[in-house]
Amino acid sequence: MRIGVLTGGGDCPGLNAVIRSVVRSSDNLFGSSVVGFRDGWRGLLEDRAMELDVTKADGILTRGGTILGSARVNPEVFRDGLETVRETLRARGVDVLIPIGGEGTLTAASWLADNGVPVVGVPKTIDNDIDGTDLTFGFDTAVSIATDAIDRLHTTAESHQRVLLCEVMGRHAGWIALHAGLASGAHLTLVPEQPFDVDEVCAMVSARFARGDQHFIAVVAEGATPKEGSMEFRVGGIDEFGHRRFTGVAQQLGEEIERRIGKEVRTTVLGHVQRGGTPTAFDRVLATRFGLHAAIAAHEGRTGQMVALRGTDITLIPLADATKHLKTVTPERLAEVVSFFG
Amino acid sequence: MRIGVLTGGGDCPGLNAVIRSVVRSSDNLFGSSVVGFRDGWRGLLEDRAMELDVTKADGILTRGGTILGSARVNPEVFRDGLETVRETLRARGVDVLIPIGGEGTLTAASWLADNGVPVVGVPKTIDNDIDGTDLTFGFDTAVSIATDAIDRLHTTAESHQRVLLCEVMGRHAGWIALHAGLASGAHLTLVPEQPFDVDEVCAMVSARFARGDQHFIAVVAEGATPKEGSMEFRVGGIDEFGHRRFTGVAQQLGEEIERRIGKEVRTTVLGHVQRGGTPTAFDRVLATRFGLHAAIAAHEGRTGQMVALRGTDITLIPLADATKHLKTVTPERLAEVVSFFG
Amino acid sequence: MRIGVLTGGGDCPGLNAVIRSVVRSSDNLFGSSVVGFRDGWRGLLEDRAMELDVTKADGILTRGGTILGSARVNPEVFRDGLETVRETLRARGVDVLIPIGGEGTLTAASWLADNGVPVVGVPKTIDNDIDGTDLTFGFDTAVSIATDAIDRLHTTAESHQRVLLCEVMGRHAGWIALHAGLASGAHLTLVPEQPFDVDEVCAMVSARFARGDQHFIAVVAEGATPKEGSMEFRVGGIDEFGHRRFTGVAQQLGEEIERRIGKEVRTTVLGHVQRGGTPTAFDRVLATRFGLHAAIAAHEGRTGQMVALRGTDITLIPLADATKHLKTVTPERLAEVVSFFG
Amino acid sequence: MRIGVLTGGGDCPGLNAVIRSVVRSSDNLFGSSVVGFRDGWRGLLEDRAMELDVTKADGILTRGGTILGSARVNPEVFRDGLETVRETLRARGVDVLIPIGGEGTLTAASWLADNGVPVVGVPKTIDNDIDGTDLTFGFDTAVSIATDAIDRLHTTAESHQRVLLCEVMGRHAGWIALHAGLASGAHLTLVPEQPFDVDEVCAMVSARFARGDQHFIAVVAEGATPKEGSMEFRVGGIDEFGHRRFTGVAQQLGEEIERRIGKEVRTTVLGHVQRGGTPTAFDRVLATRFGLHAAIAAHEGRTGQMVALRGTDITLIPLADATKHLKTVTPERLAEVVSFFG
Repeated sequence: MRIGVLTGGGDCPGLNAVIRSVVRSSDNLFGSSVVGFRDGWRGLLEDRAMELDVTKADGILTRGGTILGSARVNPEVFRDGLETVRETLRARGVDVLIPIGGEGTLTAASWLADNGVPVVGVPKTIDNDIDGTDLTFGFDTAVSIATDAIDRLHTTAESHQRVLLCEVMGRHAGWIALHAGLASGAHLTLVPEQPFDVDEVCAMVSARFARGDQHFIAVVAEGATPKEGSMEFRVGGIDEFGHRRFTGVAQQLGEEIERRIGKEVRTTVLGHVQRGGTPTAFDRVLATRFGLHAAIAAHEGRTGQMVALRGTDITLIPLADATKHLKTVTPERLAEVVSFFG
Repeated sequence: MRIGVLTGGGDCPGLNAVIRSVVRSSDNLFGSSVVGFRDGWRGLLEDRAMELDVTKADGILTRGGTILGSARVNPEVFRDGLETVRETLRARGVDVLIPIGGEGTLTAASWLADNGVPVVGVPKTIDNDIDGTDLTFGFDTAVSIATDAIDRLHTTAESHQRVLLCEVMGRHAGWIALHAGLASGAHLTLVPEQPFDVDEVCAMVSARFARGDQHFIAVVAEGATPKEGSMEFRVGGIDEFGHRRFTGVAQQLGEEIERRIGKEVRTTVLGHVQRGGTPTAFDRVLATRFGLHAAIAAHEGRTGQMVALRGTDITLIPLADATKHLKTVTPERLAEVVSFFG
Repeated sequence: MRIGVLTGGGDCPGLNAVIRSVVRSSDNLFGSSVVGFRDGWRGLLEDRAMELDVTKADGILTRGGTILGSARVNPEVFRDGLETVRETLRARGVDVLIPIGGEGTLTAASWLADNGVPVVGVPKTIDNDIDGTDLTFGFDTAVSIATDAIDRLHTTAESHQRVLLCEVMGRHAGWIALHAGLASGAHLTLVPEQPFDVDEVCAMVSARFARGDQHFIAVVAEGATPKEGSMEFRVGGIDEFGHRRFTGVAQQLGEEIERRIGKEVRTTVLGHVQRGGTPTAFDRVLATRFGLHAAIAAHEGRTGQMVALRGTDITLIPLADATKHLKTVTPERLAEVVSFFG
Repeated sequence: MRIGVLTGGGDCPGLNAVIRSVVRSSDNLFGSSVVGFRDGWRGLLEDRAMELDVTKADGILTRGGTILGSARVNPEVFRDGLETVRETLRARGVDVLIPIGGEGTLTAASWLADNGVPVVGVPKTIDNDIDGTDLTFGFDTAVSIATDAIDRLHTTAESHQRVLLCEVMGRHAGWIALHAGLASGAHLTLVPEQPFDVDEVCAMVSARFARGDQHFIAVVAEGATPKEGSMEFRVGGIDEFGHRRFTGVAQQLGEEIERRIGKEVRTTVLGHVQRGGTPTAFDRVLATRFGLHAAIAAHEGRTGQMVALRGTDITLIPLADATKHLKTVTPERLAEVVSFFG
C-alpha cells in the first residue's frame, strides 16, 4: 500500500513527529511507502510531491515546524480542484491520504472523504479547540512555553510591585490561557468564552494590592474581549498600507488599568514563540501515537475518520463529527480558575 | 470546616501544588482552614501539626518536594496507632483528612475510611501505576526529564557509534520507560511487564549497526529483568555493612552486550533527578485540579473516595477500587513501541 | 563589622544570588551581620531596613527578582538626602554599604563615596553595558532566553517561508542582540551602535530568498534605529492619556519590509521575560563571586571600589572609572556577526 | 585557499558550532572551501574525507555531537603515519588544517606543526582544563546540566532529610564541580586537586543536621579521592571479562558516610548527559567565535597557534604553550567555595 501525507494550517510542535511516525510505522509494520505533499493542499493541487523514507524521517522527531511546509489555500479554489487532487493522488499511486491539520484542513478532509477520497485525518491545533479529542499535540508545548514565560514575569512583577499582563494564543478558545493560568498561579485569567468587565478587573487588582500583596499577574487570551460598554476597545484594523495594526487586547486592557487605578502595568505578548521549536515529551508521545494509529487505520481501510485521544486510548471518530463545533472552555473548567483567587 | 493534609511516600513533583490548591480553594471557596501534618502518617501518630494558610502556600506551586516532608511508616505500627490518629485529628479539629500519596498511603487511607475516619485521597506516583486514574502528577515531569536526558545521549552515541542504555525509574510498571522511549525515539524499550531475551536484544543491536546505522539507544526501566536463563543476573543484594549493592539492570545488560557482540556500550542511570524539582506545566495543572476537587469533595462530605483523572474530567472513585491492582503497561501499549523499530 | 546592602534599578536575574552571597560570606568568613534596605535608595532615605540573616538568604540563590525590592529615585532628591542617608546608616550601625545596581545606582554610589560614605559597588545590568568589567550577571540569562525564543522562531519561519524579526533588550548597547544573534545563527543583527539602512536590509532579505533559502531571521535591539532618511520612523511618544505608545523598532521595520518587498513578516517582542526568573548557572556563579568579593573588600576596607570580572578573576576598580562611559559594542565585535552571512 | 577540519577526543557540545563557523566564514569572508576528515586523526590516516559546504553546515549550530564523528588514535600509530597524513592533505588540496580537540588532539597538532604541517588548533574540553584560554566551549553546557540536576536533587533531599551526593565529570580538574557547586549552592564540593578527609566530611554533615538543617548536598568530581588512610578506596579495576568495574567515588563515599554516621545517603552519577545535546547560548557564541578566528588565522598564515579566550577577546597562543600543563583549580578558587558553608 502507499500512503500520502500533508500538513495544513499554522505551525505546531509535533507535526514532524506525526510525519516520522506515519513513515516509520508504514514501513516497519506494513512495508508500505509514503509520499509527502509540500505546502498543505497546494501540494496536491500543484503536485509538489516529496518521497518520504525512513532516512528522511530520521532525526525529525524533536524538530519543530514541518519538513513538508504549510500554506493556506482558499477553500473554493480547493473545491474547484477536486479533479486535480484525484489526478495527483492517482499519479503518485496514493491509496490513502493522511492530512494533518486544524479545523480548515479537517473540514476539507471531510469533504474529500464525502467525495470518495480515502482519508484518515490527524487533528492539529495548539489552541486545543478541535472537538472529539481530549487533547491535540502542540497544546502542551504552547502551555509549557507560556508557563515558563509567566514564571519569569512573576519575579519581575514582585520586585517592582507591578501589574503584569501576559497575552497568549487562543482566538476562539481559551484553553492555553486556562492551563497556563492554572500552571503559573496567575491571579486572573481572561478567555474569549467570557467577556470581561474592566471595572471588576480593576477592583480585583486594587483589592489585591490593598491586602498588601506585591504584584498581580493576569493571563489574557488574544481572543478575550471586554463586555459591551465596559471600555473603549479598538478591534484590529488595517492601516493605510494594507497592514494589520497593533490591536492587542492585553495592551489595551493594561492602558485602561493604568488610567483607572494608576498602578504601573507591563504587557508581554508571547506571540509566535508559543508555536515553534522542540515539542514537549507529552506532545511527542501524542503525535507519535496519532501517526501510528492513523497509519494502522489507513492500512485497515478505516477511512473517513480522524484519530482522537479519549482517556488513554487513541480511537477513531468520523471526520464529520470532529468539525461540527469548536471545542471551547466550559463553564465548569472556567469555575476552576476562579477557585483560587477571589 | 477544617481540613487536614499530609504527604506520604517518595518525593514527587507536584506535591506542593496539591497542598497549595487545597489551602487556597478551602480558604477562597469555603472559608475553611487547613492544618498540615509533617512527615506523612508519622505526623498524625506524633502530632507534628503545622498550620497552613494562604501565605504559607504562597510561592510553592513551582517548587519540587513537599513542604510537609515525608517519611515511611510501618503499616502495623500505623494500624496499632488508630486511636492516636483519631485523637490527633480530634485535638486539631480536623473534619476531613486529605492524604496525598501512592499505593501505601492510599491503602492506609482506605483502611482509615473503613474505620470511620473521613478521608479524600489524592493519588501520587511518578511511576503512574495507580489504578483508576488515567494519569498521576509527577509522571509527566519524570518523563520530560528522562526524555531530555536521552535527547542528550543521542548525540554522544552518534558521534562515537555506541550503544547507549539509559535506566529510568519504574520498579513494577514500565510507564516512564514506555513514554520516554516513544518521546525520544529510542530503538528499544525494556519494561518490567515483559522480561527481555538478551539474544534478541543483541540481535537487534547487531542488525542496526549492520544496516549502517551509527548508534543504538535503549531505555530500560529499573524493574526490567531478563528472561529465565537468558543471562546471569545479579539481583540486588546487601553488602557486609547492611547497605544495598549496585545491581542496576542496565549496567548488567550493557556488560553482557559488550561481552557478546563486542560493541562499546555506555550506561546512564538517571536516578533521583527524575523525581525532584519544578513540575512541568502539565503536572502543575493536574496537581492543582486534584487539590481543588479533593477540597470540594471534602466539603461536600463525599469521603472514602479518591480524586482521579478520567479523560479531561476530575472524578471520584472509591479508595478501595484504586488500591486493588497496580496499573501496569498493557500489551496494546507495548505493541506501540515496537511499531517503529523492527 | 556590619554590612548594608540594597538593590537599585531594573530587575535582573542574579540579584538574589548576590544578596545571599554577601550575607552567607559575611557571616561565615567574618561573623558579620547584614542589614538590607528595601526599594533601592529609597530604603536609605526612608529607613526601610530589613535584617538579613542566613535563614532569610536560604533558597534565594535560584530565585529571580530581588527580595529587597527596587525602585527608582530622582537623583536630585537623592543628593539632597545625603544627611538622611548618613543618619540611616549610623542608626542601623552600617560600616560599609554594598549597593548592587546599574549605571544610575553606581553613579550615586560613587558620589556617596566621594562624600565619605564607605561603599563597595556591585555592577548589575542585563544589557552588559557597564564599563570596567568583562561581563555583568543577568546578561547570560537574557541572552539564553532570547536564544531559546529565536530557536523556536526558526522552525516557524522555515515552515511558512517567512521573515521573522525578534526584538530584544538593549537601549544603548547591542550586546544582547549581538550574542543572541551569534548563538541562534540569525541572518542579520541590528544594534544601536550602527544605524541600519532599510534598503540594505531589504536587499539582504530578497537575496536570501532568491538563493532558494526558506526563511530569514533578524535580531533587533530595541535601541536600533534606521539611518537618517532611510525610512519614516516614529520615535516613542506619549498618548493623550500620558501613556507610552507602541513604537517598537522591529514592528516598524517589519511593516516597512512587507511594504517594500512584499515578503510576509512576523515580529516578536520578547520584553520582560528576558529579565525575570531563575538565573543561568553562569550568572549564579558570577553573582555569587561578585557578592563574595564585595564582602571581602568591605571587610578589608577597600571601599570606593566596584567588583569587576577581568578574565577569570574578580578584581576591584574605582567606582569613578566604571561610570564614565557606557560600554558599547565595538566595531571588531560587530564585524564578527557579519562574517557568516553576506 | 582550502581548509581541512577534524574533531578529536570525546563528545562536546559546540563541536558542530565550530565546524559551521569555519565553513561559513571561510566561504563568506574568503571564498574558500572546506573539507572535513571523519573520526578524528583516523580520517587523515585513512583518508575519510567529507566535503563540507554551507548547506551541510546548515542547521548544525544547535546540534550536539559532531557531524564528523570522533575516534581515538594511538599516538605512536599517529606519529608513524606522518607521511600518510601529509599525503592525504596534499591529495585533498588542504592548505591549513584546523583540528578541534582536547589535550591529546592539540599535542598531536603541535607535533604536526613542528613537522611543518600548517595547523591552527581549536581547544575543546568540557572539563575546562586546557591551559592558555580562560574557558573552553562545552564547559558552560556541562555546568548548566549539572546545576539543573542538583537543583532537582535539592528538593528531594529536603523532603526526605537526606545526604545527596552528585558525581560530575572532571578526572584531573575540578572545574565542573567547582562551578556547579557554586551555582547550585552545594554545601560541599570535592575536587581532584585536594584529597578529602572522610572524617571532616562526616563532621560537616553531622554539624549541619545538628543545627536543624534538613539536608546536605555535595558535588563530587569523578576524579576526587580520599586522603591517604582516610577510608578504604577501591580504585577502578577491570573485571574478568576485561570490562571496567563500577568504582564511583561518590558511591563509595556515600556508603562510608552511611556507615560512619548513619544518615541516609543517595548518590547520583550524572555521566554522559553532561556532554551531549544542544549547547548553551554561551557555548554557541564561544564556539562560533573560535571557529571564525581560527579560519581568519588560517587565511592569514598565522599557524602553529591555537585560538584562546582572554577576557572578552579571542587571541592566538602558540600550540606548544597550551599543552604543557593541565589547567587545574587554584587554591584561590577553591577558597571561594568554602566561603559559604563552614
